[in-house]
Amino acid sequence: MPGVPPASFGYFGPEGTFTHQALLTLPAAKTGEAIPFATVGACLDAVRAGEVTAGLVPIENSVEGGVSATLDNLTYGDPLLITREVLLPVQFCLFARRGTRLADVRRVLTHPHAAAQTRSWLSAHLPQAEITEAGSTAGAAAEVADPGSSYDAAVCARIAGELYRLDPLAVDIADNADAVTRFVLVSRPGPVPPPTGADKTTLVLFIRVDQSGALLEILEQLASRGVNLCRIESRPTKTTLGSYCFSVDAEGHIDDARLGEALMGLHRVCADVIFLGSYPRADGLEPNILPGTSNAAYADAAAWLARLRHPQA
Amino acid sequence: MPGVPPASFGYFGPEGTFTHQALLTLPAAKTGEAIPFATVGACLDAVRAGEVTAGLVPIENSVEGGVSATLDNLTYGDPLLITREVLLPVQFCLFARRGTRLADVRRVLTHPHAAAQTRSWLSAHLPQAEITEAGSTAGAAAEVADPGSSYDAAVCARIAGELYRLDPLAVDIADNADAVTRFVLVSRPGPVPPPTGADKTTLVLFIRVDQSGALLEILEQLASRGVNLCRIESRPTKTTLGSYCFSVDAEGHIDDARLGEALMGLHRVCADVIFLGSYPRADGLEPNILPGTSNAAYADAAAWLARLRHPQA
Amino acid sequence: MPGVPPASFGYFGPEGTFTHQALLTLPAAKTGEAIPFATVGACLDAVRAGEVTAGLVPIENSVEGGVSATLDNLTYGDPLLITREVLLPVQFCLFARRGTRLADVRRVLTHPHAAAQTRSWLSAHLPQAEITEAGSTAGAAAEVADPGSSYDAAVCARIAGELYRLDPLAVDIADNADAVTRFVLVSRPGPVPPPTGADKTTLVLFIRVDQSGALLEILEQLASRGVNLCRIESRPTKTTLGSYCFSVDAEGHIDDARLGEALMGLHRVCADVIFLGSYPRADGLEPNILPGTSNAAYADAAAWLARLRHPQA
Amino acid sequence: MPGVPPASFGYFGPEGTFTHQALLTLPAAKTGEAIPFATVGACLDAVRAGEVTAGLVPIENSVEGGVSATLDNLTYGDPLLITREVLLPVQFCLFARRGTRLADVRRVLTHPHAAAQTRSWLSAHLPQAEITEAGSTAGAAAEVADPGSSYDAAVCARIAGELYRLDPLAVDIADNADAVTRFVLVSRPGPVPPPTGADKTTLVLFIRVDQSGALLEILEQLASRGVNLCRIESRPTKTTLGSYCFSVDAEGHIDDARLGEALMGLHRVCADVIFLGSYPRADGLEPNILPGTSNAAYADAAAWLARLRHPQA
Repeated sequence: MPGVPPASFGYFGPEGTFTHQALLTLPAAKTGEAIPFATVGACLDAVRAGEVTAGLVPIENSVEGGVSATLDNLTYGDPLLITREVLLPVQFCLFARRGTRLADVRRVLTHPHAAAQTRSWLSAHLPQAEITEAGSTAGAAAEVADPGSSYDAAVCARIAGELYRLDPLAVDIADNADAVTRFVLVSRPGPVPPPTGADKTTLVLFIRVDQSGALLEILEQLASRGVNLCRIESRPTKTTLGSYCFSVDAEGHIDDARLGEALMGLHRVCADVIFLGSYPRADGLEPNILPGTSNAAYADAAAWLARLRHPQA
Repeated sequence: MPGVPPASFGYFGPEGTFTHQALLTLPAAKTGEAIPFATVGACLDAVRAGEVTAGLVPIENSVEGGVSATLDNLTYGDPLLITREVLLPVQFCLFARRGTRLADVRRVLTHPHAAAQTRSWLSAHLPQAEITEAGSTAGAAAEVADPGSSYDAAVCARIAGELYRLDPLAVDIADNADAVTRFVLVSRPGPVPPPTGADKTTLVLFIRVDQSGALLEILEQLASRGVNLCRIESRPTKTTLGSYCFSVDAEGHIDDARLGEALMGLHRVCADVIFLGSYPRADGLEPNILPGTSNAAYADAAAWLARLRHPQA
Repeated sequence: MPGVPPASFGYFGPEGTFTHQALLTLPAAKTGEAIPFATVGACLDAVRAGEVTAGLVPIENSVEGGVSATLDNLTYGDPLLITREVLLPVQFCLFARRGTRLADVRRVLTHPHAAAQTRSWLSAHLPQAEITEAGSTAGAAAEVADPGSSYDAAVCARIAGELYRLDPLAVDIADNADAVTRFVLVSRPGPVPPPTGADKTTLVLFIRVDQSGALLEILEQLASRGVNLCRIESRPTKTTLGSYCFSVDAEGHIDDARLGEALMGLHRVCADVIFLGSYPRADGLEPNILPGTSNAAYADAAAWLARLRHPQA
Repeated sequence: MPGVPPASFGYFGPEGTFTHQALLTLPAAKTGEAIPFATVGACLDAVRAGEVTAGLVPIENSVEGGVSATLDNLTYGDPLLITREVLLPVQFCLFARRGTRLADVRRVLTHPHAAAQTRSWLSAHLPQAEITEAGSTAGAAAEVADPGSSYDAAVCARIAGELYRLDPLAVDIADNADAVTRFVLVSRPGPVPPPTGADKTTLVLFIRVDQSGALLEILEQLASRGVNLCRIESRPTKTTLGSYCFSVDAEGHIDDARLGEALMGLHRVCADVIFLGSYPRADGLEPNILPGTSNAAYADAAAWLARLRHPQA
């Protein structure tokens, strides 16, 4: 399209990471440029600086939990907007240089999370092997691809093994076959994507005071409008022990009446509320709308109130 | 004022009742016509029919509780609007025909509620007297005023004794010196009186299903917006035992943001909500506005939400 | 049984009242003596004084609501224990002296509640008749039975018409065919009847402070233990307007673990809790026991806590 | 003491870690043996196996949040009991071999968390230096102490610098001067330390179903007994995204009545509750006991209930 610069997508790299693999599932990314960044922070800063159109970073893993670097950067950095999420099954493979047999593997290189998530498989199949930790699974694959490397194999994503022209010695070796990582696509602040009927809204909530009472109050603000949460993560506010904020995903879109009213309620009772975006759910699950909490029910209630306030009209 | 018909005020009579006495405390009633009705229902029907401009009826007594006839008529009859409340200390007196001495009193006539509320005084000062029940304290005074009456004295309001030219044998004989009756002035539906900063809003709430859960839900709708109740009365819905509605007075005015949002919430979760009016509190008490629930806090929250939804604007 | 004095039952009379009719449905009353009292208070005082073994009084009517005289006497009088409840459909009849035809009826005598509950029937079938209020429906029947009475007919219970040898001109004339009155059998304090699996517990709860917050707290104490309410009545505490206590019926028996723990919770948060008894439900309805709130679930939890506190044992 | 084997204390090592430094603050550790373990898991397994009397591991950092390895091991491993907590201010120093000046430092070695927490200081004072990540700050110090090392300096705890006979180039270089790490001392299951009046209880709560409703229910179980939380951390259950458990610290001791009753309530409503111990608070803060929630108030309520259930006694 003349005059429209081609989109470019930053991602948490290097090439061959799971984030890279997740990026390739996005249709838009097929025509845009993919640019790896060494850290989540560098990727998000490139988005803020306009160096890339959008950035893809991991936010949550079903085994390891929330990704602190992402959660904290979105909370404390300059404003950004989540416009999309991607879910990727985590499938680890063991890759080696051509000609290496499983029985030959003495030294394995991988990222600590990958090591933790394949521990049972490794101790069953490579009980004698020494496991060494690298900065990323893709970096491990690159190192192993070097003919002079002292490492025999890497635990990494399939994309990394293929990228570095390694041979798979074993596939799907994760101890938990259902492990999933969730990624978010982040842009500079701008229009919120329109509602699709199956949306999620990500918020960061700073409570005012004591722990349990204030969290209870937050949940009641949501419950009284019929808004359900599908994720809640506590994060330290980095001041004193016992001071938390909460990173949450609520079912629904900011344009939904129940979510809008709940947001206003949170704004009133919280010390601070950060809106990080409303976007389509990757799983397409429609929300469970309780009786009396549909957009229509809210519109009825508003019309009723208007008639009471202005009986002449 | 040419062209404007003079106001007329119906009240729960006959002449000389406490309601009559309460009506006389209203400045507007001084220039209008006061018309007694034999029952609360007859008075309210006259308002509905336009035979009187407004009607004053008792709604609550600090000793006896809610006045069922008023609560039920406002709930199940055609719509009416409360525009004002009046509080009147209940001060009973013992009146007799001229020349009667306290020691002469053998037979006392009064309304059952008056008998109940002066029981201690009567048994202390007229232990031998026979107490007979009449339809109203004012009617009792009228009967006693008849020179041929077989009753020696009436327990009634001061206004009734004076009206029937009786002599007071004792004043302020209520066992509970602080007893108060609350009356409401009711009109046909129309504009709600403007907020004064110290207002009350009267509602009837029909719950959907089981008792405790639904009542809890109602209270949470109020609490999550910072709305306090100053009265709650359960009333049977006249269908089956255990089926209730709740007559409540909430602090604040329908034009207040927190009350408006709470009303919409109640409209969504209740089987039915009847709005009976917002009007100035007779005691002038300003509401206890919790942090984050002022009209300004609601306006801030609404502006914040609008900016999130329409970041361009 | 030698040595055991025969039971005697007081009731809210006179003979022929609905309470009398309700008493006759109790098997135990068939062999005991039935003694009428002119007022609820007199009946309950006779129980307290040991003049009767137990007393039956009305507590609630599906059309009129709670019976204030009973609720207040049980709350503020010396302690009593409810041991049983009776439900009686309210079926009004029109009775007259033998030979009177419906078309002859000009003057009808009845109690105000009976007049209110048959208003539609009376205006349809006796539009010209004058309705006069009496102290009780049974008293009205007695008066009409007097050949010299100026009243032609009485609206009363069937039992009253039969007692005074009147002829029924019409039966089942209540405007609401499903109206029910509930009565409670009350004894001096003593052992609580054992649980039957379908029981009710009656309490009076005095809240500490402001209306809505304190009531919410009460309901949360019940909800957190899985206790449902089947009746809640607000009653003024007779001090100032806006000061309430709540008369409630909870599902379950004081020996149930969930109710016991909820009672302790109420005792902690309320200004006062009056226990008026646990007794079998007249309708035999078993409670809806939520997951985790059965007696077995409570026993499991208590055993688990004991093991945690005393791991050696 | 003859016959009592000397205590031995495992800790998350190697020598010179912050955990080591925290261990040295414990009086008991002064006479016992201190044994480093390479991972949190190895340390806790040694406790389970009886190889050490107790183990000290980090559980929470005011900047980084919960320590996943510890939280997950305590949750999913064989039962252990927390008997004590230690708070340690996080004070990072820059250490180098004797003779190195700050201006000479080109390559810095440290643990990623330490790098993150001293980022501002490093970029201000060593803008040109290359930062490399090591497995632990103590390991970094050991490496730097090697005269042949290619690294010029280490960011580590003071204890590590002193242990490896390095010279401090700068002290207290953490960006957040108030950063604190919290450690827990863990033993095999056994008697809970007695209450001190300022205690904490650590639990893991598995919720039954949907996120927000179940968490609200948990908080209400705590609130209805007057139990406050001083920490709440969500952790994935490692099954599917959106499935969480909560690691919480509650104010109070398992022997406190309010905490015992709340624990039983949680046991009833949660899918699972893991009790990890009650122990003295390191900060000595006494709990805020709300009216009606003291041990005395609970004892009163229990005695009252017993009298109602057994009026004879």
